[in-house]
Amino acid sequence: MQIAIIGLGRMGMNMARRLLRGGHEVAVWNRSPAKTQVMEAEGAAGFTSLQALAASLAPPRTLWFMLPAGEATQQRMDEVLPFLQPGDVVVDGANAYWKDDRPRADRLAAHGIRYVDAGVSGGIWGLENGYCTMLGGEAADIRHLAPVLDTLAPPQGWMHCGPAGAGHFVKMVHNGIEYAMMESYGEGFDLLRNGPFSGLDLQGIAALWNRGSVVRSWLLELLDAALKKDPGLASLKGYVDDSGEGRWTVTDAVDHAVPVPVLAQALFRRFESRQDDLFSNKVLAALRNEFGGHAVKNTDEGDAS
Amino acid sequence: MQIAIIGLGRMGMNMARRLLRGGHEVAVWNRSPAKTQVMEAEGAAGFTSLQALAASLAPPRTLWFMLPAGEATQQRMDEVLPFLQPGDVVVDGANAYWKDDRPRADRLAAHGIRYVDAGVSGGIWGLENGYCTMLGGEAADIRHLAPVLDTLAPPQGWMHCGPAGAGHFVKMVHNGIEYAMMESYGEGFDLLRNGPFSGLDLQGIAALWNRGSVVRSWLLELLDAALKKDPGLASLKGYVDDSGEGRWTVTDAVDHAVPVPVLAQALFRRFESRQDDLFSNKVLAALRNEFGGHAVKNTDEGDAS
Amino acid sequence: MQIAIIGLGRMGMNMARRLLRGGHEVAVWNRSPAKTQVMEAEGAAGFTSLQALAASLAPPRTLWFMLPAGEATQQRMDEVLPFLQPGDVVVDGANAYWKDDRPRADRLAAHGIRYVDAGVSGGIWGLENGYCTMLGGEAADIRHLAPVLDTLAPPQGWMHCGPAGAGHFVKMVHNGIEYAMMESYGEGFDLLRNGPFSGLDLQGIAALWNRGSVVRSWLLELLDAALKKDPGLASLKGYVDDSGEGRWTVTDAVDHAVPVPVLAQALFRRFESRQDDLFSNKVLAALRNEFGGHAVKNTDEGDAS
Amino acid sequence: MQIAIIGLGRMGMNMARRLLRGGHEVAVWNRSPAKTQVMEAEGAAGFTSLQALAASLAPPRTLWFMLPAGEATQQRMDEVLPFLQPGDVVVDGANAYWKDDRPRADRLAAHGIRYVDAGVSGGIWGLENGYCTMLGGEAADIRHLAPVLDTLAPPQGWMHCGPAGAGHFVKMVHNGIEYAMMESYGEGFDLLRNGPFSGLDLQGIAALWNRGSVVRSWLLELLDAALKKDPGLASLKGYVDDSGEGRWTVTDAVDHAVPVPVLAQALFRRFESRQDDLFSNKVLAALRNEFGGHAVKNTDEGDAS
Repeated sequence: MQIAIIGLGRMGMNMARRLLRGGHEVAVWNRSPAKTQVMEAEGAAGFTSLQALAASLAPPRTLWFMLPAGEATQQRMDEVLPFLQPGDVVVDGANAYWKDDRPRADRLAAHGIRYVDAGVSGGIWGLENGYCTMLGGEAADIRHLAPVLDTLAPPQGWMHCGPAGAGHFVKMVHNGIEYAMMESYGEGFDLLRNGPFSGLDLQGIAALWNRGSVVRSWLLELLDAALKKDPGLASLKGYVDDSGEGRWTVTDAVDHAVPVPVLAQALFRRFESRQDDLFSNKVLAALRNEFGGHAVKNTDEGDAS
Repeated sequence: MQIAIIGLGRMGMNMARRLLRGGHEVAVWNRSPAKTQVMEAEGAAGFTSLQALAASLAPPRTLWFMLPAGEATQQRMDEVLPFLQPGDVVVDGANAYWKDDRPRADRLAAHGIRYVDAGVSGGIWGLENGYCTMLGGEAADIRHLAPVLDTLAPPQGWMHCGPAGAGHFVKMVHNGIEYAMMESYGEGFDLLRNGPFSGLDLQGIAALWNRGSVVRSWLLELLDAALKKDPGLASLKGYVDDSGEGRWTVTDAVDHAVPVPVLAQALFRRFESRQDDLFSNKVLAALRNEFGGHAVKNTDEGDAS
Repeated sequence: MQIAIIGLGRMGMNMARRLLRGGHEVAVWNRSPAKTQVMEAEGAAGFTSLQALAASLAPPRTLWFMLPAGEATQQRMDEVLPFLQPGDVVVDGANAYWKDDRPRADRLAAHGIRYVDAGVSGGIWGLENGYCTMLGGEAADIRHLAPVLDTLAPPQGWMHCGPAGAGHFVKMVHNGIEYAMMESYGEGFDLLRNGPFSGLDLQGIAALWNRGSVVRSWLLELLDAALKKDPGLASLKGYVDDSGEGRWTVTDAVDHAVPVPVLAQALFRRFESRQDDLFSNKVLAALRNEFGGHAVKNTDEGDAS
Repeated sequence: MQIAIIGLGRMGMNMARRLLRGGHEVAVWNRSPAKTQVMEAEGAAGFTSLQALAASLAPPRTLWFMLPAGEATQQRMDEVLPFLQPGDVVVDGANAYWKDDRPRADRLAAHGIRYVDAGVSGGIWGLENGYCTMLGGEAADIRHLAPVLDTLAPPQGWMHCGPAGAGHFVKMVHNGIEYAMMESYGEGFDLLRNGPFSGLDLQGIAALWNRGSVVRSWLLELLDAALKKDPGLASLKGYVDDSGEGRWTVTDAVDHAVPVPVLAQALFRRFESRQDDLFSNKVLAALRNEFGGHAVKNTDEGDAS
């Protein structure tokens, strides 16, 4: 079917590719034209104007946004809105906050425009493996998207999760779990490396555990691959960004009194990874100095206090 | 090759089966004879005496213990020791603490007996899928075991991890990670269930995420299966045992100053799951009562203190 | 000076008392008249109508709200607003969220009404010891309040923390710390009680530690008092409410990427204290059952998986 | 009474001083003689030989060890043992592990020597305020020590906690709580500093909270003092040592299935404070790179995976 992909970042460009390879008619728009040209060379119809993009599509149009979540997405939706008409379907595939979906759906509905929120997982591997896709909105609108979803996702790899926001919510929790699983492996491999046995073959262990152990997973396959390239991860700094999902997972859990110690810890470690010297630790050093006369940064016999 | 399996619990019995199916000559011993008889019916040589078991094997013997870790294992090893001779190989496949392996290896070495520690993962699925096996000890002794390891494990599914204890240590960390991964899913699905969207199809989401998402794993496949049988897990009590590995992972990390917040949290939640009323929470209730006049177990406007 | 206290709960009534004892002219209003009558008997001017209350005060009026935070407070502020006039000062002493203060201050400023947010600590002990008070707003308005603040607080026990919201924000963090300190004692005394030495005299230890140890504090004095009344805390259920501050502390920390593992944990334990059977723990039980054939709620040799 | 203090570190020297000021007859020994000479000048009998020290005391002797816990203490105890005789009392005031006390008590008992374990809190302030002292051992031996305990401790500031080891155990838990309280303040002040309100007067808030708030404590008085000297703690590095007690608290809790999330977290943060780049965070960075093509150390739109 005919679909527009708006935003050709790491995710959007490969999604456009997968749709083209699946035989769909794909129009693309990107802020900087270089990526648009790349996709034109691969068979997409490229546009530098959202108006022209909209004009090129036969109603009911399908526009799938893959821009950074929030402002960037909203700005382009507002920009293209005047060129849409009742019955058109707008999809937001960014990692947006589910709380923004219902108001947005209502605003678009006032113009007769349909809205679907989509959480899309798969990373750079999605091109090859397909994108696991979680959808929120009206059933009819998601049925309308079925042909492209069947192409984007692996077999049975998409799902209508619930009303507006449910797609982004389920994707948000997915990422919260992802943080905690990554942290689980991170801590375990830290102990393998810095525990009582020196010189353990970390890559060998990652590979081994993927063969029949309880902790086998796709993430562990990726870790195996990373350790193959750099067995001690010496080339990497342990600096870890976080995105909205990890944070919203924790704040939503707090709002609903769901205790999530592990999800929260995984998030806090990412915060810590980006700070050289936590103020909280300075407070501790100051206190130890006050009560124990512990010199700063010396190694003494401890808090003999 | 010829091998004795000592202990026919959930793990040992299926390992004996897998070895029999792989064409090995398997002798078995179990405290209660019923399971021994079952295995005799499947082709094993069954024994009710460890002396007779040892006498039935041609030197160099291979004895693989699959008894509860610690005392139970040690008692049977001591019992059979007089009937062994230099060159025989003893394997402990239980979830034993790696710190006990080196002293045990030294004690056995004084009699000329070889010792290998084996961490075995795979649960009840190991019969079908093979057992991921982590080994510690001397290279020559592990080479001696290769024929049975090739049968027990999936392809490339066993590894010589290091000297005595390394097999149990790697298995211990595996289980520490396992606890934390389980907890990651547990908390995420708790939020799916008790968060802002009611009635989400948890089983559908578990199944979906296994198709191309970042958090796909074998554990998630098991969760999918469990939710298929009981979508709300209403038949289960959230009572979760823990075994030595999870605890040793945390204490070893503490010993080596490796910060493991997520591994520790996963363990503590298991402790909490088994207690009706934590004393620490009573302390909190007592304090709130003292400073705020907060009645016990009432719902008031909080710590307006 | 002349002041109205609106809301005679645990905090408001004792604050009115302390002001009366300090020689101030105190008008009071409460939803149910019984408490108003109590305070009339102690020397306050009691009102059942907010209009009459406002009419009784000489401009510029000082109205200090001590109602449950949020809706309850807002409703009464809206109700009395028509009877106020430019220059009057409205104080919110509830545990309100600081994010609501700036919009409220702006709305009131449009009517010429001054707004001060006040975080008030001290609990039921404030009547005797004074209330530690944290204030946000304009310096001139807080100077206007100085006579009542000098009476309410212990010596030097109030502070102008910053602009609108700063008082509630500092109080919020205070409560976040309070949760974590309580949890620190809770866990420590749990280990004293359930650790290797049975029969330790917990009350004696609480009393002892208040005499020269590093962990001495007012909370520990309260714990001493509570343990004197009930040495095993057997009369209490470990059910612990939480209020907005503890939650907002964690969500604000997440918003600002401040890692707060201990503050968050203290909050999560309160959530857990109120639930019989966490869904997350059911997920764990389900998984153990799937991979290990672990019977539900039995004590076996663990995750030998 | 007559007492020997063995070890003149930060704690031992001030304890000797406090005993001298209390009118006791104090003999001292220290590895390096300089400190011994200082105490001689203050009225102590100084010795460079443990044999001479022992010879100078009238039986039953009282020897109080204040050396680094473990090896250093044991070595000197072994060294002086030949010069002791039945009925002499040996006290270990170091932050030793309680599990070592019972075996040590038994070994000394074989020579007729009495053993008392003492947990001593108070830091450099103990000289002035007295040392809160927790004791384990036989009641008769602790009664023997009462005169020196009455001098060392503040009024009612010492306690016979239980049998051998109980003194060190109670002190250990004290320090576990201490870590968590310090971390509670640390995180709270981190949020005060790095949260939504810039420029808050942290020292003013610490001082304020000590006047009637729920979180007032001796540690908060120390923080007030530290912030007075250096309001932004700019002169301090957030590098925080830990001693055995914090670790043993967590491992003992794990051994007894007491869930201590806050105590453990406080310990882990100290570990983290001393590491530049956690291997676990490198694992996370590696995984993000693998699945998302996230460049290392760039700021992108996150785990849109």
